[in-house]
Amino acid sequence: MSLLIRGATVVTHEESFSADVLCANGLIQAIGQDLDPPAGCKVLDGSGQYLMPGGIDPHTHMQLPFMGTVASEDFFSGTAAGLAGGTTSIIDFVIPNPQQSLMEAFHTWRGWAEKSASDYGFHVAITWWSDQVAEEMGELVAHHGVNSFKHFMAYKNAIMAADDTLVASFERCLQLGAVPTVHAENGELVDHLQRKLLAQGLTGPEAHPLSRPPQVEGEAASRAIRIAETLGTPLYLVHVSSREALDEIAYARGKGQPVYGEVLPGHLLLDDSVYRDPDWATAAGYVMSPPFRPREHQEALWRGLQSGNLHTTATDHCCFCAEQKAMGRDNFSRIPNGTAGIEDRMAVLWDAGVNTGRLSMHEFVAVTSTNTAKIFNLFPRKGAIRVGADADLVLWDPQGTRTLSAKTHHQQVDFNIFEGRTVRGVPSHTISQGKVVWADGDLRAEVGAGRYVERPAYPSVYELLERRADHHRPIPVPR
Amino acid sequence: MSLLIRGATVVTHEESFSADVLCANGLIQAIGQDLDPPAGCKVLDGSGQYLMPGGIDPHTHMQLPFMGTVASEDFFSGTAAGLAGGTTSIIDFVIPNPQQSLMEAFHTWRGWAEKSASDYGFHVAITWWSDQVAEEMGELVAHHGVNSFKHFMAYKNAIMAADDTLVASFERCLQLGAVPTVHAENGELVDHLQRKLLAQGLTGPEAHPLSRPPQVEGEAASRAIRIAETLGTPLYLVHVSSREALDEIAYARGKGQPVYGEVLPGHLLLDDSVYRDPDWATAAGYVMSPPFRPREHQEALWRGLQSGNLHTTATDHCCFCAEQKAMGRDNFSRIPNGTAGIEDRMAVLWDAGVNTGRLSMHEFVAVTSTNTAKIFNLFPRKGAIRVGADADLVLWDPQGTRTLSAKTHHQQVDFNIFEGRTVRGVPSHTISQGKVVWADGDLRAEVGAGRYVERPAYPSVYELLERRADHHRPIPVPR
Amino acid sequence: MSLLIRGATVVTHEESFSADVLCANGLIQAIGQDLDPPAGCKVLDGSGQYLMPGGIDPHTHMQLPFMGTVASEDFFSGTAAGLAGGTTSIIDFVIPNPQQSLMEAFHTWRGWAEKSASDYGFHVAITWWSDQVAEEMGELVAHHGVNSFKHFMAYKNAIMAADDTLVASFERCLQLGAVPTVHAENGELVDHLQRKLLAQGLTGPEAHPLSRPPQVEGEAASRAIRIAETLGTPLYLVHVSSREALDEIAYARGKGQPVYGEVLPGHLLLDDSVYRDPDWATAAGYVMSPPFRPREHQEALWRGLQSGNLHTTATDHCCFCAEQKAMGRDNFSRIPNGTAGIEDRMAVLWDAGVNTGRLSMHEFVAVTSTNTAKIFNLFPRKGAIRVGADADLVLWDPQGTRTLSAKTHHQQVDFNIFEGRTVRGVPSHTISQGKVVWADGDLRAEVGAGRYVERPAYPSVYELLERRADHHRPIPVPR
Amino acid sequence: MSLLIRGATVVTHEESFSADVLCANGLIQAIGQDLDPPAGCKVLDGSGQYLMPGGIDPHTHMQLPFMGTVASEDFFSGTAAGLAGGTTSIIDFVIPNPQQSLMEAFHTWRGWAEKSASDYGFHVAITWWSDQVAEEMGELVAHHGVNSFKHFMAYKNAIMAADDTLVASFERCLQLGAVPTVHAENGELVDHLQRKLLAQGLTGPEAHPLSRPPQVEGEAASRAIRIAETLGTPLYLVHVSSREALDEIAYARGKGQPVYGEVLPGHLLLDDSVYRDPDWATAAGYVMSPPFRPREHQEALWRGLQSGNLHTTATDHCCFCAEQKAMGRDNFSRIPNGTAGIEDRMAVLWDAGVNTGRLSMHEFVAVTSTNTAKIFNLFPRKGAIRVGADADLVLWDPQGTRTLSAKTHHQQVDFNIFEGRTVRGVPSHTISQGKVVWADGDLRAEVGAGRYVERPAYPSVYELLERRADHHRPIPVPR
Repeated sequence: MSLLIRGATVVTHEESFSADVLCANGLIQAIGQDLDPPAGCKVLDGSGQYLMPGGIDPHTHMQLPFMGTVASEDFFSGTAAGLAGGTTSIIDFVIPNPQQSLMEAFHTWRGWAEKSASDYGFHVAITWWSDQVAEEMGELVAHHGVNSFKHFMAYKNAIMAADDTLVASFERCLQLGAVPTVHAENGELVDHLQRKLLAQGLTGPEAHPLSRPPQVEGEAASRAIRIAETLGTPLYLVHVSSREALDEIAYARGKGQPVYGEVLPGHLLLDDSVYRDPDWATAAGYVMSPPFRPREHQEALWRGLQSGNLHTTATDHCCFCAEQKAMGRDNFSRIPNGTAGIEDRMAVLWDAGVNTGRLSMHEFVAVTSTNTAKIFNLFPRKGAIRVGADADLVLWDPQGTRTLSAKTHHQQVDFNIFEGRTVRGVPSHTISQGKVVWADGDLRAEVGAGRYVERPAYPSVYELLERRADHHRPIPVPR
Repeated sequence: MSLLIRGATVVTHEESFSADVLCANGLIQAIGQDLDPPAGCKVLDGSGQYLMPGGIDPHTHMQLPFMGTVASEDFFSGTAAGLAGGTTSIIDFVIPNPQQSLMEAFHTWRGWAEKSASDYGFHVAITWWSDQVAEEMGELVAHHGVNSFKHFMAYKNAIMAADDTLVASFERCLQLGAVPTVHAENGELVDHLQRKLLAQGLTGPEAHPLSRPPQVEGEAASRAIRIAETLGTPLYLVHVSSREALDEIAYARGKGQPVYGEVLPGHLLLDDSVYRDPDWATAAGYVMSPPFRPREHQEALWRGLQSGNLHTTATDHCCFCAEQKAMGRDNFSRIPNGTAGIEDRMAVLWDAGVNTGRLSMHEFVAVTSTNTAKIFNLFPRKGAIRVGADADLVLWDPQGTRTLSAKTHHQQVDFNIFEGRTVRGVPSHTISQGKVVWADGDLRAEVGAGRYVERPAYPSVYELLERRADHHRPIPVPR
Repeated sequence: MSLLIRGATVVTHEESFSADVLCANGLIQAIGQDLDPPAGCKVLDGSGQYLMPGGIDPHTHMQLPFMGTVASEDFFSGTAAGLAGGTTSIIDFVIPNPQQSLMEAFHTWRGWAEKSASDYGFHVAITWWSDQVAEEMGELVAHHGVNSFKHFMAYKNAIMAADDTLVASFERCLQLGAVPTVHAENGELVDHLQRKLLAQGLTGPEAHPLSRPPQVEGEAASRAIRIAETLGTPLYLVHVSSREALDEIAYARGKGQPVYGEVLPGHLLLDDSVYRDPDWATAAGYVMSPPFRPREHQEALWRGLQSGNLHTTATDHCCFCAEQKAMGRDNFSRIPNGTAGIEDRMAVLWDAGVNTGRLSMHEFVAVTSTNTAKIFNLFPRKGAIRVGADADLVLWDPQGTRTLSAKTHHQQVDFNIFEGRTVRGVPSHTISQGKVVWADGDLRAEVGAGRYVERPAYPSVYELLERRADHHRPIPVPR
Repeated sequence: MSLLIRGATVVTHEESFSADVLCANGLIQAIGQDLDPPAGCKVLDGSGQYLMPGGIDPHTHMQLPFMGTVASEDFFSGTAAGLAGGTTSIIDFVIPNPQQSLMEAFHTWRGWAEKSASDYGFHVAITWWSDQVAEEMGELVAHHGVNSFKHFMAYKNAIMAADDTLVASFERCLQLGAVPTVHAENGELVDHLQRKLLAQGLTGPEAHPLSRPPQVEGEAASRAIRIAETLGTPLYLVHVSSREALDEIAYARGKGQPVYGEVLPGHLLLDDSVYRDPDWATAAGYVMSPPFRPREHQEALWRGLQSGNLHTTATDHCCFCAEQKAMGRDNFSRIPNGTAGIEDRMAVLWDAGVNTGRLSMHEFVAVTSTNTAKIFNLFPRKGAIRVGADADLVLWDPQGTRTLSAKTHHQQVDFNIFEGRTVRGVPSHTISQGKVVWADGDLRAEVGAGRYVERPAYPSVYELLERRADHHRPIPVPR
């Protein structure tokens, strides 16, 4: 079975040109002018549209057990929704309980993910520390295609990694050629503020952002960045939501440190007034961490994308329905944290980013796909339109429009943080492994069609870091 | 007994003018033209000289028990050396052992300090946390004239305060109207680097700066600042030594946060090449924390003083002789940390600051005296030349020179980090409580002449902070 | 005639305390507890109120001939309105026409100002360049108490000073010990944008801010600052209105350069949406240059005041009535530029600054009075509450309220940019030269009571700059 | 004639992989594993070496008439030296005299360049303004492959473009889809300082850097950037040499403005102490503008490359021999400005950049070749290793060493600013248009082998800028 996309404008992270693209056996086979379709080849008319690498969402939490419940979106429904939105790969998270074996958790998640409709991979969270953890990190890297480890700096008394764990784990990443990543919020301050606010009688969702103000994120970003700087590792910060955290990234990058930032469409477009919605369920629907911020942070985050201080867009897709959110009815700190977005990420970013002249089309491709592939060592298998690359593509209709809504989305959750927003620029077709899986509203996701994608250690930044470490190796003074 | 200083140019933090100054009963009694000396009044000719408020050194450690030994300078010898250098007050530190009662430690230090030759006060360190600590903080503020508490973010497994202690103690400071202060270095990273360097065979003093690189200070500065920001307290950072820490202060101040920075002459003038001195004892003589930095940090620190992001100069005067330093002969991390400087601070700063046009004379007064008095609520009793202020003064000879040396200084230690440096601009006379205690090389310090100075709570910044907190008090959403 | 203000809390730029203040012969005669009023002394009860130095407005344009008309507020009515608002001194501008003698213009303005009700001084504008201009600058400094010269970087083809004039005039200021000041907008870009917008059919007031976007101000600020840096002069920027200009000031100050910034209440509180008011006259009423800015600039400017990168507040008080504004009915670039504010400055700043916790009371005094006095060498005659200082005072009622309106203000203009705003914190009494001139709504301004105030050359910053220049004097290489 | 490079590691701006590369007809024909050489194909063994895109030097001045003389390097000798150093294309400058026709000057330069050994193109300088200039800019873009125009902000009374010219020319560039570029130094200040220094008796080369201090460059950078921002054009700054200019670029890029910076190896590695060399001729040999800077600027510039605020490296190759330099024997301002470097750029950058861990190999390719190709719309014809791209390649021996010297270089000038420096990492072979032109020390440059390369208008940044302009188009208020 082969597929020829004809007449589209190919748009990559660095150029655009008109060409036909031929896919077969899951790969791109040819790119050129007036390609002849092989026998039996399906032909898709791309005229007037842009053909781009399929989106990669580096931050999802399908069917995550969290805060006493389980996310409503499973690996099939979630990846299927992704395909409807032009996203053809995800990187989800294995989150062991403290004291739990990493390998055990890894295999649990691998099992859950077998039903995925699109390709997927896993970051693994480091929620505790021991020699066993260090050893299992090695095993995951060497034998299981994991090249990144996540650290939650928040969630005290649960999965929070304190400084000793951060230092030990980052050092271990360095030994393994892996990328440490962090959820940057100071868990000690969050805990303190939650208790203080509750004591003051602030129990509703409006207290959520007050318990995690921007500087709490800035602090943790600074700390993680300085630990990485000290040890000589790269660093990836998930869901950067505030000017404070962004400023820390910019500061470090201005000194030549390889730090990467991820941003969510919600943080680019929504502000913290949502938490003061008079309807509790609506306000609770927006509860995620870090929270949406005062308006001025949005422009800062856009500028972060423009200036190259933010590199990827993700969703932190983690769905909880109204009845789950209601667990925190009397105590905002018990509202399950998480919002949906995998289906809407690309269209929202195009509409608010490209249509407004904030981002070029090339930057759009970079931040929705290519940069993630590069950082997590999937490039050019993913994130590229080249002969030999995976045939994961999205055909983009810049004139198409869609109104986002929980009533019509494919995401398995009863809430949409962009409810009612109309976007211009939508995926008309999504191609995964060379097959059309979304065609003008027709979702053809298949259970289990997705593959686990191994990510090799030592992404290219390590070449630089090793040379740098060599050059600065300390030399004793003979005395 | 009264004293009339005649014909000097009075220089304060904001103006200069020619006037006679009359002192009696330990206070300034009159400032004016052609004052008549009362009967029996001693007259001091100040012509051609500047009359400035006596220096205040907000950071000394006289006879400190530390790292298995005791600092060689006691409260008498140290304050006497201060008088020889124009410094008429110090604020030293009470450092309880973890689990020790704050009151017990406070009384111990009060006892040691009774021999002081100049006025003195105490910051009290918070080295552990409990309800008792919180209670004793209250007692110290209410009844003992303590309005500032110190937190060591370094020295893991000893006196380090982790985030939970920082948060609890800063919150307590807020309740009491006290000023939290920090030694900003990430103790976890220092510990990690010390062990790593030793394992690599780096055992000499050259490893000391490598174990505490600038970002380790920047990290802790950022963390302390964000905790203060979150809780709404002021913050004072002792011995800011790096651009990284300074940048964090500037960032916070740029957002209107009341953060204050202290800098030592050593960090303004010396660089980390000293630790590579082929003579072990020389290299070890410079060991203090934070260490002296690569040269580019010096200019940054000067700019910090110029731009108002650094506010005070201090010495962290903490003396260890060669035989004490030798405790770390085989392991740099065991070299007692500390250097001397109380006698040289003002002259070094004048020479390198005022003579070069980096600082105005007014700024010199501000950063050697007045700002400290304001921040720690001693102004205008100290730090001012006004009728009614303490008659702590220094008569400054801008043409006098001195060559700094361990051979000639009054400090009770066998090492001088400025050995051989010649400065222009020296104190010709120092007046403490209205008495001449240093006169052209004649040191007339008296054991026990110094008084314990109570510092009231609620320095003026609290008026601002309270109004700010009121204005931002969280309001629940009625639902 | 003497005046005793009893029982108020004295608030200066650096402290507050309860004291009685006795004034006589235009000066403060005594400050102390329970002062006895001399015979015939008027006594004013200050209890529950703050007694502060009278405001100084360093930027007014009374009866200015400009853009084909003359400002509606004359020196009497304007200074009287100032007194009603707590402002007891102004510094206005002499603006010679290009080719006009500076001395001639100076005498013209001096004549106009004789009717002033409060003390006043003059900056003199440099609108052209020649040897005569240089010579007259010298005469003004030496014999007429002028120590500052203003340069308009905008208003091409009128009074704009291009780079050659700026360089020559700043160099001349250096020779004279005077302070160069600038109106920072790039006149070439403004001219270009005005023509472009008009050509596009944008003729209304909404085009005014579009013709002078923030970067146009940032550019000129950068240019003036770098010229001052290069020549070694201080620099004062009037009406800093944008983050861009502020960032340039902060950048320079961060390097130790003595640059001062002035800000207007309008720029702190109003945004550019006013220019899109559907009523032409209302929109035109807000036309001044630089224009009010998008909202995000306001917070930046507040932070500039907090962080010490902005130093003074002024009004650029320059009144044009509706019929004058109507001159630009068909062409926004012909709307006379200017808005009123001298009466409202202090109350607006207190309400939006002090009540909200943005500024301390000390900072309020500094930015409304003391800093201006220091920069322009009037301190401590003005801007201080000290024995011997001018008895220019304001007694501030922090609980009093007022609703600002053109219907009730004393300013001689039919528009108020703060129309309808209610402020809390008002001057209950204003004292000028020791006399009560405003008492609970009763304005007792007298024609001609104000004095011309000479300002000596060489404000204290020059001591620093001269030492700095000496230290960096270039040395030829002998070859 | 074809050429197969076998066994090298291909290194591009974003990846590296082992592959054979086949060239024929001046183009890359195939990239793959174990390619079979066609009949008659020359085979080059690349094992152990890196194969990278040939360097592009976007800033040269071959045989330039300047300051009363003509640069000693002609288009043949200069491009040949470039080939010896791995550089396979240059972009030189057509510099019309004020009042001269652009077309006339363009044809003059085209004639001079016909002897070039490598491919070349031209920026055209705008040294005056008139309708004719505007028209000829259009002709150059439409018919002659010019897509960039240069503006000298220095050189008053010669080729300096003042603000009116800058604004008019940038606006014209916008209409044409061309890229404005600037030499950023404030010519008015330079002129003032030159005259002032000469008047003070500073006539030697040591006065050169004093006449053009860093802020003079920062000023002009700020100005050009703000003009570009206001009009909505891209901007390229040549030879960024100072932290001040870099900071302006970073500031603008942080707000999303497309500004590009170029840096020279000399500014990365040399400091201004060279101008104090006791030998006049040596000191004069380093005279170029902007001058080499105090040491701290170097680290800033490296960080600019690392952080993506500087994009390209160039040489400003402009050779004057000792006897030419001697024209300024008595007056430093008459020393012809210019230094050589085209032969050394890549090796110096590799040695000081890649070997030290400052730059990755990918960044090396980006800043020596690919970024220039993208900015000036030559990508992927140049700057890429792809099928169909020009076969301009360099085979890089990372272990090879060379000692730079005027005695051994191929540049036609008697001075080398890197005299005596030994670098590790050298081009073993250079391939231009598919031919080996430099092979292990054997230079096979041919007169006239180079082609004029047309650069189309509207590089891809314009797609973004046009969308941005559309989105912000001003809308009149209906009244």
